[in-house]
Amino acid sequence: MPDIICLGIDPGLARVGYGAVVQSGSDLKALNYGCVETKPGMNFSDRLLTIYNDIQEQIDVCSPDFLSVERLFFGRNLKTAGNVYQARGVIMLLAAKNKLPVIEPMPNQIKMKLCGIRNADKAQVQGMVQKLLALEAVPKPDDTADALAAAVTGLAVYAST
Amino acid sequence: MPDIICLGIDPGLARVGYGAVVQSGSDLKALNYGCVETKPGMNFSDRLLTIYNDIQEQIDVCSPDFLSVERLFFGRNLKTAGNVYQARGVIMLLAAKNKLPVIEPMPNQIKMKLCGIRNADKAQVQGMVQKLLALEAVPKPDDTADALAAAVTGLAVYAST
Repeated sequence: MPDIICLGIDPGLARVGYGAVVQSGSDLKALNYGCVETKPGMNFSDRLLTIYNDIQEQIDVCSPDFLSVERLFFGRNLKTAGNVYQARGVIMLLAAKNKLPVIEPMPNQIKMKLCGIRNADKAQVQGMVQKLLALEAVPKPDDTADALAAAVTGLAVYAST
Repeated sequence: MPDIICLGIDPGLARVGYGAVVQSGSDLKALNYGCVETKPGMNFSDRLLTIYNDIQEQIDVCSPDFLSVERLFFGRNLKTAGNVYQARGVIMLLAAKNKLPVIEPMPNQIKMKLCGIRNADKAQVQGMVQKLLALEAVPKPDDTADALAAAVTGLAVYAST
């Protein structure tokens, strides 16, 4: 089986985590990963454009076979949710612009895949990201680790389809 | 005062209404208007790309000075809201890509501007759109009329700033 590259994304407005993982056989390795940050002082449209440009750049860097974009789960905080969903729309647009398939794992699906339990906490997920990808430290901020977790989950889903 | 052109948008996923209105002194005139439709059978990313391409085309057609993008207001239906917000994010991205300012009127602000009451019904708003823009008929579907109403409101807000 040829190498498969997945770019995982943890969507947000102030911080968008991204993390590319390549699978070679059963071996997983992190490629480019990090976090796009936009300042609350910028106007909303310009924040979306920053996300659009910076994530496109990461797509260009790793040439993924597909994206894994975490689904959003909000309780009742619809005000924040609206802005984060708009930022997620920019990511989903990039998928189509780059003709990339998208896997959209639920947060608890990611926890289940990495830790074997649906209600794993952040520290458990981050520890497994570090272990599975043999990283020297837990990637920071949380959004970056979450994006790598989404990529690992995406590769597992992809392999099973 | 030179002519001012506003492109109004009524955001949505299945239907995105758009309507450009030019203001010359106190005179208002509709330019291009209509509705971008995306089919539920398409995949979500491709629907966003259709919206992106088609609204960019309308921006190219009318060269607006600014956009007026209606704010979304949802009760408890967060499931639908998430998709519509993602589509709205694509519109807001286009504003920044085209370096256009955005006015974001609330639904009841549009009703107030056109009809003088905050709880005007759809028929009242549509009747006023037809009258103010001297159109032979009410623009269809509703999304198109709502977009023209957003543009008229946007021009009023713009003039007052």
